Amino acid sequence: MPQSDPLASTRASDHAAGLAEAIGDAVVVSDPEGAITVWNAAAERIFGFTAAEALGRSLDLITPERHRRRHWDGYAKTMRTGVTHYGAETLRVPALHKDGRQLSIAFTVGMVRDASDRVTGIVAVIRDETERWAEEKRLRQRVADLEAIADPARREP
Amino acid sequence: MPQSDPLASTRASDHAAGLAEAIGDAVVVSDPEGAITVWNAAAERIFGFTAAEALGRSLDLITPERHRRRHWDGYAKTMRTGVTHYGAETLRVPALHKDGRQLSIAFTVGMVRDASDRVTGIVAVIRDETERWAEEKRLRQRVADLEAIADPARREP
Repeated sequence: MPQSDPLASTRASDHAAGLAEAIGDAVVVSDPEGAITVWNAAAERIFGFTAAEALGRSLDLITPERHRRRHWDGYAKTMRTGVTHYGAETLRVPALHKDGRQLSIAFTVGMVRDASDRVTGIVAVIRDETERWAEEKRLRQRVADLEAIADPARREP
Repeated sequence: MPQSDPLASTRASDHAAGLAEAIGDAVVVSDPEGAITVWNAAAERIFGFTAAEALGRSLDLITPERHRRRHWDGYAKTMRTGVTHYGAETLRVPALHKDGRQLSIAFTVGMVRDASDRVTGIVAVIRDETERWAEEKRLRQRVADLEAIADPARREP
């Protein structure tokens, strides 16, 4: 994906960047080509990249290699149609930390539009749910283990 | 809590409101007195109140009665100190839908500041996790039920 001048975008949306900066979840805005134009403090915390390192870069920065093709297919379609598939849905996917660790993130996406309703990008709001996923997996495994123990027991009178 | 003129606040932050509107999670900004100044489309979807119904109202609109005192104690302290207790934490609390239903929400909070770094409000980003909580509760109950069954079984040779 081509890169754009991040400073032009952030200057044009100082107020928006101010609110994004205040938000406690990662807020990542990307332009129609998929270049990052907003990267707030929580995004720095979750992914390990500073704003200086992330702005202007492609979203590949945090997308695992095996997910990139599907990611960009969906991205291009969303920009073309102006509609996200997801509506109110929270998406759960793997992502990459700067240090190479895999994260489990939960995010929503929305279309960013200018005053004339033209789509200028996509905003993702992202939570790191790596620990929560591990806990849920542990619970499901515990259920499976217990069911394996309990089932023979149940067959006894 | 006193109410303020919501239109003055939304006009002053058109760009911020534009980004907030695009975001797929509920974005609720409240002023130092706790009156709602930003209420985006996802907030309408999750809580059932339109922006017209919510703007200018107190956060009591969505706070269960039994949680209000603690909520406002924390709110006042946050406005006084300019620091949220929570940092990167995601908070999980009950909330109210317009139709009276209790919701389980997960939210982050952050301080909104003006150009001179004065705190002008608090931004909450909110997900409805009512179904997810019910599912987690069901899983934990399943573990407890299975443990009650499995434990006597384990005591057998």
